[in-house]
Amino acid sequence: MTDDDIALAHDLAEAAGAAIRPYFRAPFDIESKADASPVTVADRAAEAAMRTIIAERRPDDGVIGEEYGEDRPDAARVWVFDPIDGTRAFIAGRALFGTLIALLENGRPVLGVIDQPIARERWVGAPGRGTTLNGVAARTRRCADLSSAYLGTTSPHAFDADDFSQFEQLRAGVRDTLYGGDCHNYGLLGSGHLDLVVEASLKIYDWAALVPVVEGAGGIMRDWSGAPLARGSDGRVVAAGDPALLAAALARLA
Amino acid sequence: MTDDDIALAHDLAEAAGAAIRPYFRAPFDIESKADASPVTVADRAAEAAMRTIIAERRPDDGVIGEEYGEDRPDAARVWVFDPIDGTRAFIAGRALFGTLIALLENGRPVLGVIDQPIARERWVGAPGRGTTLNGVAARTRRCADLSSAYLGTTSPHAFDADDFSQFEQLRAGVRDTLYGGDCHNYGLLGSGHLDLVVEASLKIYDWAALVPVVEGAGGIMRDWSGAPLARGSDGRVVAAGDPALLAAALARLA
Repeated sequence: MTDDDIALAHDLAEAAGAAIRPYFRAPFDIESKADASPVTVADRAAEAAMRTIIAERRPDDGVIGEEYGEDRPDAARVWVFDPIDGTRAFIAGRALFGTLIALLENGRPVLGVIDQPIARERWVGAPGRGTTLNGVAARTRRCADLSSAYLGTTSPHAFDADDFSQFEQLRAGVRDTLYGGDCHNYGLLGSGHLDLVVEASLKIYDWAALVPVVEGAGGIMRDWSGAPLARGSDGRVVAAGDPALLAAALARLA
Repeated sequence: MTDDDIALAHDLAEAAGAAIRPYFRAPFDIESKADASPVTVADRAAEAAMRTIIAERRPDDGVIGEEYGEDRPDAARVWVFDPIDGTRAFIAGRALFGTLIALLENGRPVLGVIDQPIARERWVGAPGRGTTLNGVAARTRRCADLSSAYLGTTSPHAFDADDFSQFEQLRAGVRDTLYGGDCHNYGLLGSGHLDLVVEASLKIYDWAALVPVVEGAGGIMRDWSGAPLARGSDGRVVAAGDPALLAAALARLA
């Protein structure tokens, strides 16, 4: 992973944002099934724009995208895109959805971008290089005590019954819980405003960009068994701003 | 309620926003109990700024505020303030909290403001004058069918056990449910991006500003029995963008 890759990731985020912005809060007749919804159109347009850039500038790299599937997913370098993470938020006109961009090298995420194109917030993280928000260094905050921790999660319905009871065990131990937010929560954790984010049912295009942002900012992101996320992970994730908080969170999720 | 009152409401929102912005995403040692949190400081500073303006420009009007209590609450005209609705969102660095400003005349809200001072979104509503978002007319959207409706609510934990089971009845009947958002959800409903917002445990300073925004935009806001909100309401509220949707929502909440 090089400076050129980081510059490319910014260009990808710019292209996705330009594709998405015209559809945000666009009028939409939800009672009609005739037309594709603005979020569907924006999602596809943003991913197509990013794929075009990769095809031109990194023709040997693989691509995995939420909308258009896999293209050489076993290449040494693979770009992973979720053009609109948080489609419900987008539909409701909330500027908390995000474009997720990751670069995998030999299956491991080495660069991650969380871009919010309406509020113009862009977190960029890479192991060994740190995390930035709009170019300024971002750091998680210290919080080693579960009872002091602020927890974020998007929706209680993202958990199946067993996972939900484990989540509730965790929730009972923290200071407060904030709902909604999707990928934006991981950016807020990277900037030291949340201490834990816990979710389930995440696909690789949902989590690949988050790991470098969280870990570049000083945090840690794992599955519920404590293992690093990898292709084949079961989609249950926990991010802790303070690595010292991870064990207590995992104990509640076990 | 006059044009001067609307101009005053804008001035109140400006003053509150100026008091709040320096504390948004301010670093905060959550492990220390020594200092007041940024949200507490911002909340008080914003309400104090608004009360100072009322004392100068409307000395005969009453004031009800979330932070500093009641001052002539039985006056013919009463201003109602919640300087930071959505303290959890504020703490987490999410620009979805809002400053709520209402004017009651003879106990009824005749002017309401939902102001988001970071994203600079301001909904202003008044019966007979319509609702605006940043000066542009805002309208709810048509959605008379519960199964097409997008529902917003801040947290499942805002409901007690009985209320939660009624809420779950409603949730089972809608198209999708979005969590988080606080007062901002009512603005999004006023602008036609959500169809229903349902909550419980709201105080007068939580709902007084919302009613004029929702109803000025073409929607309707009631308690769970279908009655208009008034002092003494039990804090359970339902807002529907399409008034034709209210009966179906109330039937599920009954």
